[in-house]
Parts: sequence; C-alpha cells; structure tokens
Amino acid sequence: MTTETLERTKLYLEDLKLGQIHRSEGEPVTMDADAIKAFARQFDPQPFHLSEATAAKTFFKGLAASGWHTTAVTMKLLVESGLPLAGGIIGAGVEEVRWPRPVRPGDRLRVESEVLEVRPSRSRPEQGLAKVRTTTLNQDGDPVQVMTSNLVVQRRLSQGFSK
Amino acid sequence: MTTETLERTKLYLEDLKLGQIHRSEGEPVTMDADAIKAFARQFDPQPFHLSEATAAKTFFKGLAASGWHTTAVTMKLLVESGLPLAGGIIGAGVEEVRWPRPVRPGDRLRVESEVLEVRPSRSRPEQGLAKVRTTTLNQDGDPVQVMTSNLVVQRRLSQGFSK
Repeated sequence: MTTETLERTKLYLEDLKLGQIHRSEGEPVTMDADAIKAFARQFDPQPFHLSEATAAKTFFKGLAASGWHTTAVTMKLLVESGLPLAGGIIGAGVEEVRWPRPVRPGDRLRVESEVLEVRPSRSRPEQGLAKVRTTTLNQDGDPVQVMTSNLVVQRRLSQGFSK
Repeated sequence: MTTETLERTKLYLEDLKLGQIHRSEGEPVTMDADAIKAFARQFDPQPFHLSEATAAKTFFKGLAASGWHTTAVTMKLLVESGLPLAGGIIGAGVEEVRWPRPVRPGDRLRVESEVLEVRPSRSRPEQGLAKVRTTTLNQDGDPVQVMTSNLVVQRRLSQGFSK
C-alpha cells in the first residue's frame, strides 16, 4: 500500500508532457561562503571562489560560487524533489549550461524544470529520452543557471503494466 | 623574475591556436569508492552512486561516479595544470557534456583540451572567447566525459603589452 502510494508519485516517460513544469519543494539550498570555499578548494581552486578579498579584484568583483558547485546543488535539488523520475535522474547528456549571473554567499537556490521533448526509444522499449530545461533560481527569482539536458526515463510498461 | 617566469607560462587569447591540444600534467585524479560515495551523499544521492550492492541492480550495473563528480574533477584538472589561462578558467557557458562510459571506482582521470575557436570580443577589447573541447580520459585512454565550453580569456594587450 505504501509502496503503491510512493510509486504513484514517481514519474515515468508516459507521465511527462511537453510544457510541464516541475519545481523543487521544501527549503531552498543556501550557498554560504564556507560551502562556496569548501567546494572550490576541492574542485575549482581559483581566487574568485576562495577568498572575498582576492575575489574583489577579479572578473567577478566579489566571492562567487564555482559554476560546477551550482550544477552539483542543482542535481541535489532535482534528485531530492525537483524531478521525481521513477528510475532516478540519469543524464544521457547535456546540451547547454549557462550561468547568467554569479551565485553569491547567502543566495538561496531552488530549481524549475520544463519538459521540452519526450521520445520513446526504438531499440529499448523499456525506456525513452526526455529533454528538460532546468533553471536554477536565487531568492529574488533571478536565474543563476540554465541547463538543458537529455535524461534516460523509464517507461511505465517496463513495470508490467499493460498501459 | 619568478613572477615573470610564472606569467610567461600563462596563456592569453593571443596564445591560443585552432587545433592546439593542452593536457593535464602530473598525477591523474583517482576516483576511489569513498570519494564517489561522498560526492553522491552531498550532491547526487542516488543508489547507483552510493552503494555497490544496490548499484549492481540498476541501469549502471555497479557503482558509478555521478557525472557531476566527473565534471568537478575535470575542472580541478583544468585549473591545476590542464589549461593555464592567464585570467583563470571562466566559463561563459557549456555547449555540450556527454558521459560516454561510467567512471568506476579506481579509475584514474586526466584531461585533454582542444582549441576549437578563438574570438576577440568586439565590445571588450581586453578579453575574448575561446571554444574548447575537453575530453576526460580514464587510465585506459577511454573517454569518460566530453565537454565543449566557451571560456572568457584575457587578451595580452590588456596587460599593457604593445603586442
């Protein structure tokens, strides 16, 4: 019973429709200065991501999160609530990532995803591809990242349903 | 003297040529199971990135690194040695990311970047854009990620050189 209820909230390829918008729920993720610097130390050790003082003299004119930090947090928001796909979120590939404005310390991020295409696979009847544009927004509703990706999505029929 | 020597090894827009290949130097980054799971817990908490046993029953048929973990490690390799740009590595945007095969525990990653386009900016004479295709390779030389990005690159003349 519980399993069935849970299952019903998961989305299969048949549940995705062009123009549908899916939003992350619950608390946004806060990008505090410590988290920005910790990610940068591990993966993107450049001055504009590591130190307020040095960052002030760079292209970014102040501390900014690594774009890949924003991408990683976007993934977390998608996995936890933003896009509840039955088989998980499996990227076949990404067509675009843009960062229209920097993520600053204290920014609170959430995601919105729009379904752009839904295509059954010809060779693998148990799955298909969905093209989705995911916009990551800050607390002012301004986009800080726009990403278009192709996701591998399970078909409902692979679960033994006749339709 | 030291500063000058260091400066000379940094690349400006004028130093980039179509077809040039830049490679990361030194030790590859090893993707061990602990690192794969730690990244996943923080940013991509899905079964195929978190547990060998559960991963065996999924699409990936075994533990695999999050694609965003590979992207983050790619950035680290680019920043540390792979692409020594004078102003740092600043992505204007990414045109493509593909993950042709999974990254498995123990894989050792390095990067190769090919310069595809070099364009001065019309509005900002101190910089330009370079389109670069970065391939992340495992220890067998097989690509695990292919990414094409547009980078903001400083021009040499912005440094006060006449040429």
